[in-house]
Amino acid sequence: MDRNRILATYYIETPFPLEYAAEAMAGEQSTGTFVTVPGETPELKEKHGAKVVSVTELEAVRQPSLPGSRLPAGMDASHATYRRAIVTLSFPLDNIGPSLPNLMSTVAGNLYELGEFSGLKLIDLELPNAFADRYPGPAFGIEGTRRLTGVQSGPLVGTIIKPSIGLHTEDYGPLVRQLAEAGIDFIKDDELCANPAFAPLEERVKVVMEEIERVADRTGKKVMYAFNITGDIDELRRNHDLVLKAGGTCVMVCVNSVGFAGTAYLRKYSQLPIHGHRTQWGAMSRSPLLGMSFTVFQKLCRLAGVDHLHTNGLNNKFSEDNETVAQAIRDSLKPFLGGYHMMPVLSSAQWAATAVPTYEAVHSADVISLAGGGILAHPGGIAAGVRSMRQGWEAAVQGVALETYAQSHPELLRALHKFSK
Amino acid sequence: MDRNRILATYYIETPFPLEYAAEAMAGEQSTGTFVTVPGETPELKEKHGAKVVSVTELEAVRQPSLPGSRLPAGMDASHATYRRAIVTLSFPLDNIGPSLPNLMSTVAGNLYELGEFSGLKLIDLELPNAFADRYPGPAFGIEGTRRLTGVQSGPLVGTIIKPSIGLHTEDYGPLVRQLAEAGIDFIKDDELCANPAFAPLEERVKVVMEEIERVADRTGKKVMYAFNITGDIDELRRNHDLVLKAGGTCVMVCVNSVGFAGTAYLRKYSQLPIHGHRTQWGAMSRSPLLGMSFTVFQKLCRLAGVDHLHTNGLNNKFSEDNETVAQAIRDSLKPFLGGYHMMPVLSSAQWAATAVPTYEAVHSADVISLAGGGILAHPGGIAAGVRSMRQGWEAAVQGVALETYAQSHPELLRALHKFSK
Repeated sequence: MDRNRILATYYIETPFPLEYAAEAMAGEQSTGTFVTVPGETPELKEKHGAKVVSVTELEAVRQPSLPGSRLPAGMDASHATYRRAIVTLSFPLDNIGPSLPNLMSTVAGNLYELGEFSGLKLIDLELPNAFADRYPGPAFGIEGTRRLTGVQSGPLVGTIIKPSIGLHTEDYGPLVRQLAEAGIDFIKDDELCANPAFAPLEERVKVVMEEIERVADRTGKKVMYAFNITGDIDELRRNHDLVLKAGGTCVMVCVNSVGFAGTAYLRKYSQLPIHGHRTQWGAMSRSPLLGMSFTVFQKLCRLAGVDHLHTNGLNNKFSEDNETVAQAIRDSLKPFLGGYHMMPVLSSAQWAATAVPTYEAVHSADVISLAGGGILAHPGGIAAGVRSMRQGWEAAVQGVALETYAQSHPELLRALHKFSK
Repeated sequence: MDRNRILATYYIETPFPLEYAAEAMAGEQSTGTFVTVPGETPELKEKHGAKVVSVTELEAVRQPSLPGSRLPAGMDASHATYRRAIVTLSFPLDNIGPSLPNLMSTVAGNLYELGEFSGLKLIDLELPNAFADRYPGPAFGIEGTRRLTGVQSGPLVGTIIKPSIGLHTEDYGPLVRQLAEAGIDFIKDDELCANPAFAPLEERVKVVMEEIERVADRTGKKVMYAFNITGDIDELRRNHDLVLKAGGTCVMVCVNSVGFAGTAYLRKYSQLPIHGHRTQWGAMSRSPLLGMSFTVFQKLCRLAGVDHLHTNGLNNKFSEDNETVAQAIRDSLKPFLGGYHMMPVLSSAQWAATAVPTYEAVHSADVISLAGGGILAHPGGIAAGVRSMRQGWEAAVQGVALETYAQSHPELLRALHKFSK
């Protein structure tokens, strides 16, 4: 691609002619407001204007997906047709430079509010290499995370501390010890638990890391614990340093709560992998014709320096179907800007058997697989639960039927008996 | 209200019984995931759980507003009813402390993704005073802005530099001089123009402030110029200092591009009013049953310390109707946390006559009124355009018909002739 232009692709719906609508998008987000303004010379427009790269017409509907769209002059609402299309625009890099916040104002910006549209979703983004020079991306990614955890292949098997919120500092010790002794690879705070009065981060870090180190001393295996350091911008640094100093190996932030800019700032000084939670993601994505696709979101997260990103899991309890989740995982595993390798984090209703449809859909085990009941409610205990998860993934990767693999792997067998519906 | 609890109100749509759905929200965003998890004792739930404060049933529909919702066991899709309701939850402050980023993870969080809902919008938020202790809010607000501009009453009349992007540094001098000499109160950068290669912020600040100071030397009136300092977190400080040092009196950020956390961080050291642009707002709001209301958004912006916030203007070219815009302006003018006064910024297709329906709807002239063509295309020139805007507001505030007021105010008369449709 042109190294001096940014490419953004949108799924749109409009009652206006498609070419007109695409030009309106390009104008609004660059030199004009479609209508030529004084000073918008042809030279200025040529040099600094966004350009319509392509328009691919799709289906048409009779009802607008979102309220607030205007109709072309003379068109009656009862006869209106709302055309859908894929539109790609290109923006001059020089308009903003390789700036993540200004990228957002440019490729998203006011577009969602334009009266010409009854739907608009940002579905892809291609960035020139200048962005890679400015934002170094994930510092640890898949390789660094495997190195820190000692998990050479297969998924990192992990869990989330539950209840999500309300445990007191003293509750963490026994819980973490039990999980670490069970051979788990990864533990994380819930996104709701950051620095509560009854379990302050500082004390939690101390208690948790003490348990992790003690188990590591005995077993040689040091669990990666993602501490939720989400907070004000200046707290991020303090919190990161706290975790680092205590020997912790991972910090977690809710990307949408601290912002892409806040996350990128953390990346500048972080010496630990950044575990990115996507909470609030539904607000940006659940309307089919508004917000942005996960394809875009995960690229922005990687640009900001996220090492692990939540993608949801197959057969989850949330509103996303399996194809959407599989696509999110695949997107997260695709190289971006020539690398920027990031580890997808699968969670929600996961257990040993979820490995099979997941691996079939994504053909990779470079993931962090989080289970709650799938591990903790295993009839053989937590260690057996962890083993059953690994066995499920082994079967999936080797292409062996779960039932067959379970014949020689008793923990998987018991999981199948307990959790199969 | 209870000084130890956060109140959040939602507009929801669900095929599940309303009480069940409300409890699911409370569980997901606090101690559990509705289903009781091990360790979620009654004591823990009582102390740290979110509570359902009220559920008010509204209309029901036959089709889900958003895709992805599950149905209650045994319910057939063809017989499903999706009930809408207003649900208020309360959250213990102790779960997060007065933390803006963690507030977002808690009151918004995963709710949008829950399979129990076919629509969910956060429509109001009440915060305990602890938030006011942590976040001081707008440092200048209405009073400080009036003090800095010398505009004692009535709206600040302003404009946005156009073309939005593409002007070179040397283009700014003549443009700003012309506007300042015309007696305008306020000028701002477009949200698309922050620090482009062809008009770097540093040089732009120099050129713009030189012109502003020179006009001020002659006329005694110093225009407030909102420089768009949007950028990476560390750039915000550098950019702010640049503007401050050059004698500038306002900095602008795109709140959604730097994040609430980034904005609150800027507020910590800013010695200038923060002009908040709401670009990307449509993505959060345009779906009637997803995202958040402006009522909530403007509270979050004020908490972050925004002094001026874009609300859109009546009769705008965008997708919001007048009632939505009027509500946004009224919301922004209502005291919050006992004060936190902020100035709404009205723009898009504004001219002298827009003052009348605006004042009728909001009963206040404590606004920044931005016009493009309404000022620049006035047949008497820019100064006449500015005067026509003031005259429109004077007539509106005094309750005099525009046509009557125009008899003794020729600039208004010419505006009416030129711009009335």
